Amino acid sequence: MGCNLAIAGVTGAVGQEFLEILEERDFPFDSLKMLASSRSAGKKIEFKRKTYIVEELTKNSFKGINIALFSAGASRSKEFAPPAVEAGAIVVDNSSAYRMDPDVPLVIPEINPQAIAQHKGIIANPNCSTIIGIVPVWPLHKANPVKRMVVSTYQAASGAGQSAMLELEEQTREILAGKKPTCKAFKYQIAFNAFSHDSALQPNGYNLEEIKMVNETRKIYDCPDIAITCTCIRIPVFRAHCESINLEFTDPITPDQVRDLLSTAMGVTVLDDREHNRFPMPIDASGKDDIFVGRIRQDESIPENRGINIWVAGDQLRKGAALNAVQIAEKLL
Amino acid sequence: MGCNLAIAGVTGAVGQEFLEILEERDFPFDSLKMLASSRSAGKKIEFKRKTYIVEELTKNSFKGINIALFSAGASRSKEFAPPAVEAGAIVVDNSSAYRMDPDVPLVIPEINPQAIAQHKGIIANPNCSTIIGIVPVWPLHKANPVKRMVVSTYQAASGAGQSAMLELEEQTREILAGKKPTCKAFKYQIAFNAFSHDSALQPNGYNLEEIKMVNETRKIYDCPDIAITCTCIRIPVFRAHCESINLEFTDPITPDQVRDLLSTAMGVTVLDDREHNRFPMPIDASGKDDIFVGRIRQDESIPENRGINIWVAGDQLRKGAALNAVQIAEKLL
Repeated sequence: MGCNLAIAGVTGAVGQEFLEILEERDFPFDSLKMLASSRSAGKKIEFKRKTYIVEELTKNSFKGINIALFSAGASRSKEFAPPAVEAGAIVVDNSSAYRMDPDVPLVIPEINPQAIAQHKGIIANPNCSTIIGIVPVWPLHKANPVKRMVVSTYQAASGAGQSAMLELEEQTREILAGKKPTCKAFKYQIAFNAFSHDSALQPNGYNLEEIKMVNETRKIYDCPDIAITCTCIRIPVFRAHCESINLEFTDPITPDQVRDLLSTAMGVTVLDDREHNRFPMPIDASGKDDIFVGRIRQDESIPENRGINIWVAGDQLRKGAALNAVQIAEKLL
Repeated sequence: MGCNLAIAGVTGAVGQEFLEILEERDFPFDSLKMLASSRSAGKKIEFKRKTYIVEELTKNSFKGINIALFSAGASRSKEFAPPAVEAGAIVVDNSSAYRMDPDVPLVIPEINPQAIAQHKGIIANPNCSTIIGIVPVWPLHKANPVKRMVVSTYQAASGAGQSAMLELEEQTREILAGKKPTCKAFKYQIAFNAFSHDSALQPNGYNLEEIKMVNETRKIYDCPDIAITCTCIRIPVFRAHCESINLEFTDPITPDQVRDLLSTAMGVTVLDDREHNRFPMPIDASGKDDIFVGRIRQDESIPENRGINIWVAGDQLRKGAALNAVQIAEKLL
């Protein structure tokens, strides 16, 4: 019945969020091993009134571990997840390393918890912008299949890690002091600016963030023919992503039906107050578990009332990463 | 041959930009009258090495004026544009007051300069997000009619005036100092945040900014059946708007054709460097005349290669407001 838990990448932005969420949810464990790169080994971390010493992540880190939460980047997942599985651990991996592997379930517990049972040692956590966009669309898609989605994202700095969040703050201070902003974590200025997502561009002109949204949605929804197009943009916000989502459904649908379906949906909070022009904002979602949804309206540009626009906000570090992985681990127990 | 010029609302963000642009373009005038509300009357403004004293905008301000550039808000345009016309002036109005009036041409010089000739004293300047979005789409639409546009905006504070730009700066300082941000110009926090556009919500759930984009585009393109849906969002940027635009065309079209059409288009600069992940940003467009266009890609979610995604950035105060109005005035001369 016990669970020996390991966290790989514990000193990163998502790693720190793992600890917050494990404590908040009182996740049951017998032992906890904190792992990170050699650079962070030896660092002390207080957790639940106990002091842990960060150990270096190696191939031998996983003896006796039951569940390992990984958020140390795709190359480290590729190197250390297989030995972790070999040692008997189940790996919940937050990186992109295994998401599209046909042998690895890609899971959002509100959508496809049944996929967890098919794991062969590794379960993949989807990309943040995929999770935040498709959790609220799922109850609509189940009721009336989505034929096409057009998504534009408004993504926070946190998706690029702690150094990017610090860079947003530092650049902002520099600009307010009349100085030239220093770009290190991002190639281009993030403070008081916006830019096309910093992931690698592919030959078709889409960046990897956009391609993840298309491929991961099809896998999670088990719907290989859903049409999706996506434009991913970074804006100067710390830790919550927003998305403008245009939906074409198979059959007619009204904003009231959407509101009804979302009002009882798992992991979703409807915030759609037209009277006060009060809709989801990054600061609403920051530190919260739910995805917030508003601006629910008929899209008159799609015939037969089959079009709906929505606007969503979700915490990139929580539901976009650490929370979703912990929810998967809870299902494993 | 002479032109006696008046500027109504000269002390506002757009009014100040009028002066910049008139000087840069060496706009020819014999006399210049600077008008604003009684609050600003008496204020001194240096322009082209001469000191002007701001006069109060009244119904009697326009004797002998040939061209009056208005940017003092819709209610002042409604009050003072008719007496200006009666006094013999041609009014180029930057407000929403007359845009949808069938007797008033709504003009973007790159698109429908011929409409200017139909004026009866007033010519309307379109809304900023409309101009910035549809200038680059026009050369594509002429070559291959656009059937449907899905637009998501990333709008700067400047659209809400000087006080909103100052508020973005002040709130940012407050947050960095650990204080609660003060909201006055905007109802909700703009610093390190994003929110649904602050214009009035209509019964169908769309705000006025979104409705302007739909109606103004149809009027300027003279294309009442073009299908448009729009989600307008403010982000913490000072003075340039960005827009993510998804286009469905009548016939097949390739990204190369789009690039070719835009490379010779008036008022447009293509910035589409996939190799360096270098695409238009607000800081590129700020202070510039052109609309910058990048992220030109085929949208595979539309059949028969009839879909294209683009990403644009344009200066809200220049092409989105003052520059477009001055260009109209130049055509009048």
